Amino acid sequence: MTAATHLSHRRAHTESPILDVLADRWSPRSFDATATVSIDSVRSALEAARWSPSASNSQPWRFVLVQRGTTDFERVTSHLMGFNRDWAGSASFLLVALAELSSSEGREQPWARYDLGQAVAHLSVQAHADGLHVHQMGGFDAEALRREFGWDVRFVAVSVSAIGILASPDQLPEKLREREHAPRSRKPLDELVVVGTELLAS
Amino acid sequence: MTAATHLSHRRAHTESPILDVLADRWSPRSFDATATVSIDSVRSALEAARWSPSASNSQPWRFVLVQRGTTDFERVTSHLMGFNRDWAGSASFLLVALAELSSSEGREQPWARYDLGQAVAHLSVQAHADGLHVHQMGGFDAEALRREFGWDVRFVAVSVSAIGILASPDQLPEKLREREHAPRSRKPLDELVVVGTELLAS
Repeated sequence: MTAATHLSHRRAHTESPILDVLADRWSPRSFDATATVSIDSVRSALEAARWSPSASNSQPWRFVLVQRGTTDFERVTSHLMGFNRDWAGSASFLLVALAELSSSEGREQPWARYDLGQAVAHLSVQAHADGLHVHQMGGFDAEALRREFGWDVRFVAVSVSAIGILASPDQLPEKLREREHAPRSRKPLDELVVVGTELLAS
Repeated sequence: MTAATHLSHRRAHTESPILDVLADRWSPRSFDATATVSIDSVRSALEAARWSPSASNSQPWRFVLVQRGTTDFERVTSHLMGFNRDWAGSASFLLVALAELSSSEGREQPWARYDLGQAVAHLSVQAHADGLHVHQMGGFDAEALRREFGWDVRFVAVSVSAIGILASPDQLPEKLREREHAPRSRKPLDELVVVGTELLAS
């Protein structure tokens, strides 16, 4: 199965129509380690993150962007945990997403993680539209990463995203390959909407 | 100025091209209190939230959806703070977004707020594509809301989104009207990318 064929099989089976870019977006582990992706391909994704909404427009986010083949890329991958190390190194870029938990004036920013999630969501949607795939990871040592790069404790790394070109799952170790084929699933909507369920039924 | 003219003036001035739906999305305070929006108009937005990514597909989110003209809507607005009460009541729906901080088995879900942010981001992008506008608020009494509706302390309300039909800013009180016209702004990209800035320059 080619990467492209595989991709079309991953579309979400939605109960109501949603934008193609949202239905088609998914998080592969199979990236093309030979692909050369220029920074220009990622620029729009970063711009999308930049324009996402945040509490009082505080923009409580920072990004560490590293490219495969550089020392910085190795510095980031060395702090990934478990099997993330087995596949994320094939991505063209890794993006460490930092939440700014308090402002430079020491003011707490309680929505920092929430808003960072929005920024990375916008980033991954734009990246998908630009022919890239994004897989966000939570499995990494955030404090070791902080010490590695030396950012202030006001900032915490919440996710590391692999960004790159989709490759056939056949290249993955078997235990990971199965996951690329597993059906995509979500909880039903009436489990998620806890008040107003009568609206859904109307 | 009509609502439609006003809208076109709000497009983000991006440095790199991004999807129309991301550039055009913004957070108005001016909603049409006379508009009738059916639940079907919001269904796709909820579906988009449902299919957003989360740590280990934990989907640590729940939604309270209430419609203008119902008692539940009044129950939510009564816990909004400050000037949010002056405008949010004109929205067709309010959506309280809850992060599930720990699973039903008591397992901590450290990415709950981050993932909830992603879900609401997907929701607001889809809503915008469907002709709705979304304005997320952080100014509300989360604990009072929890007691009001009686959900478990495992869940915390992180945002309340006004969802509805854009109206002319002229109908707003003057102090709010100015905000609808204020230029949209964001920090420059080279302030957001803290490592890898040399990539941006290349």
